[in-house]
Amino acid sequence: MNYSTSQRAVAEFIGTAFLLATVVGSGIMAERLADGNVAIALLGNTIPTGAILYVLITMLGPISGAHFNPAVTLVFMLRKEIARRESLLFIAVQIIGGLIGVWAAHLMFDEQLMQFSLKVRSGGAQWWAEIVASFGLIFTILATLKHRADAVPAAVGLYITAAYWFTASTSFANPAVTVARSFSDTFAGIRPVDAPGFIIAQIVGAVAAFAVCRWLLKEQK
Amino acid sequence: MNYSTSQRAVAEFIGTAFLLATVVGSGIMAERLADGNVAIALLGNTIPTGAILYVLITMLGPISGAHFNPAVTLVFMLRKEIARRESLLFIAVQIIGGLIGVWAAHLMFDEQLMQFSLKVRSGGAQWWAEIVASFGLIFTILATLKHRADAVPAAVGLYITAAYWFTASTSFANPAVTVARSFSDTFAGIRPVDAPGFIIAQIVGAVAAFAVCRWLLKEQK
Amino acid sequence: MNYSTSQRAVAEFIGTAFLLATVVGSGIMAERLADGNVAIALLGNTIPTGAILYVLITMLGPISGAHFNPAVTLVFMLRKEIARRESLLFIAVQIIGGLIGVWAAHLMFDEQLMQFSLKVRSGGAQWWAEIVASFGLIFTILATLKHRADAVPAAVGLYITAAYWFTASTSFANPAVTVARSFSDTFAGIRPVDAPGFIIAQIVGAVAAFAVCRWLLKEQK
Amino acid sequence: MNYSTSQRAVAEFIGTAFLLATVVGSGIMAERLADGNVAIALLGNTIPTGAILYVLITMLGPISGAHFNPAVTLVFMLRKEIARRESLLFIAVQIIGGLIGVWAAHLMFDEQLMQFSLKVRSGGAQWWAEIVASFGLIFTILATLKHRADAVPAAVGLYITAAYWFTASTSFANPAVTVARSFSDTFAGIRPVDAPGFIIAQIVGAVAAFAVCRWLLKEQK
Repeated sequence: MNYSTSQRAVAEFIGTAFLLATVVGSGIMAERLADGNVAIALLGNTIPTGAILYVLITMLGPISGAHFNPAVTLVFMLRKEIARRESLLFIAVQIIGGLIGVWAAHLMFDEQLMQFSLKVRSGGAQWWAEIVASFGLIFTILATLKHRADAVPAAVGLYITAAYWFTASTSFANPAVTVARSFSDTFAGIRPVDAPGFIIAQIVGAVAAFAVCRWLLKEQK
Repeated sequence: MNYSTSQRAVAEFIGTAFLLATVVGSGIMAERLADGNVAIALLGNTIPTGAILYVLITMLGPISGAHFNPAVTLVFMLRKEIARRESLLFIAVQIIGGLIGVWAAHLMFDEQLMQFSLKVRSGGAQWWAEIVASFGLIFTILATLKHRADAVPAAVGLYITAAYWFTASTSFANPAVTVARSFSDTFAGIRPVDAPGFIIAQIVGAVAAFAVCRWLLKEQK
Repeated sequence: MNYSTSQRAVAEFIGTAFLLATVVGSGIMAERLADGNVAIALLGNTIPTGAILYVLITMLGPISGAHFNPAVTLVFMLRKEIARRESLLFIAVQIIGGLIGVWAAHLMFDEQLMQFSLKVRSGGAQWWAEIVASFGLIFTILATLKHRADAVPAAVGLYITAAYWFTASTSFANPAVTVARSFSDTFAGIRPVDAPGFIIAQIVGAVAAFAVCRWLLKEQK
Repeated sequence: MNYSTSQRAVAEFIGTAFLLATVVGSGIMAERLADGNVAIALLGNTIPTGAILYVLITMLGPISGAHFNPAVTLVFMLRKEIARRESLLFIAVQIIGGLIGVWAAHLMFDEQLMQFSLKVRSGGAQWWAEIVASFGLIFTILATLKHRADAVPAAVGLYITAAYWFTASTSFANPAVTVARSFSDTFAGIRPVDAPGFIIAQIVGAVAAFAVCRWLLKEQK
């Protein structure tokens, strides 16, 4: 396919915006309705997030690659599959798109537009969870892309569905998502001061997956 | 495939009827059983709706295109992929089918046949939610249709699964659904007086998605 | 593919046995754990049933057609796609397999082997629900088989997922399932005396779908 | 594809580790949040497990076959599709990987690293459940592999989704999983002393499925 840089950037923008609108919007809806049962709220947050990832990657993948995630863009830059210049554009657009998505959700739910989260997400266990979550996400993308590219939308959607539950951090695994969620004092929020720790852990996990895959996915002659 | 206009109209009729029977029927079932926990009720409404959309679009898409939604028919008319005359027939049949579906559900659940909803769904946040919901639905259909047509049933089913939770209005995103649900004073209902506001918002969102896609999905030479 | 009659019959037997073990077993598990919230119990009954249908139809469809349902076998006999003699064998084997599946579930959950249900499922609304449920099931099978045969396992699994919630009877839609469930006084049970009403409704719905599809799915020259 | 033995072993290691991290991690998360409603906790354990199985088999299947399960490796050895020597390596790596996965989950959730389960899982009903669970799992793998190999990831993921609910033991169906879960005194645990009974039942079920499939899946000339 043959799309221009501006089309690709807009695809990343719309995709990340819808991803964040879903994460934050479904979090608000789920918490409001769940009557204090946090497991039910997390189900109501998980199912929409996994579902929208399938949709967004299916429909926008052929335009921009459907990164929606600076850690993914970074890995594709390390693999030299995207130019450094376009990478920086993608990352900027992902961060802005994420913010717009959060604000769109706030507007839909009659929440104050500008918020900063007070939810503490910090400490070694949480960072370890983000390393595992991001390692698994990048590993899933690279290995599925190699072996069965048309299954990437389902694999990523279902990976995040699982990772919302099996990681103690509910698997942010995405620096743009982390920044955006720091702007929402709702179910999905994270304190701005805790964002850098998460982002560092995400990059560590992503780069580790990149390294492992370079060896693991290389077929023998 | 080669189906007659009457076969196509009946496909739209049956599809919209089953869609509404599912939306309203599962809403009644879920609310009756959920013991007051609205998040559980919404789960019991979401999963069947997403599931039946996959089924209906898979099996009826090759006959009529599986619109089941006047906003979708409108967009295909704007794209000149369906004649104006057939569009009007489709829209009429969708509205009638939706009503029949609601009544079929009422009969199954021993509810009074003719009802009018008392549930208030109004105000700027709700209308904004419907604009977002409908924008996303049309965007999903057009972009998936272009890039991976066989994934449309899964993409639409999962989009609505997500949108039931991430939009504050639980994503009607469909004028025929809106009219039909105004005839049911159950979980899924909407006051008849609130229907026009929803329908206008749905058309705004749909036309906006049509316009964005015209630019975004056009490949460069 | 080329399988013998005995292989085909065993496939119907194993499939129907696993279907019933899942319906009854997950019903017991769900009710025991759900702490009186019936919507949660029904979720815990729905998700496994939809899931196992996908599995069973995928893996046994190429052997026997994966009917697991006398109403389905009847329709394929009406369509002259299966001989009358084999039809009768299939129906006998489905009924026996269903019973064995129920007993296998009872054994797993330390329930008494032989039980008769006391759960009342009767009256016009319930029968209407079974007509709708069976009409929809046969319609789903025939239309999906024609337009996208490889999607039948997903379509049937998701149709039943929806129909557990949108029909007031939780969609038995299968005479062998109805007989078998009358032998279990657990979540999924039905009083033996109520079984004939359900079975008649199922046959009415199935034959109606057969007739509608004969017209609707016939392409024009 | 052409991967070395060490690549194949590492694929089995990573896959089994992620499988166990998901089973144990989501079990901890679900139990902590579910407020005592065990059905909700089991939903929060089931959905991630089914989801991650789809992901892991999709992406690692082309490297190692994606066994992650000594019972599966045993059956492929009986079918002479894997050499005895590699089988033993796979089984060793699966057991070690499972343990590492459990410990990774404990670290993420601030649990003590080394634990032994106190949860009793014993007696004839439980063993019968494990025989049924393992029979169904191996049957699913062999029959789907023959008839529609690209559906194996979905079939296995959905089979386990169903079996978590329809078997009274919540379907371990995997000796490496059984050993690993004995090292976690959390939702998913099993007393070490109960592990051998489960493992014997799993091997019985697996070998029975192997035998049935040898006859059932053999096409006639």
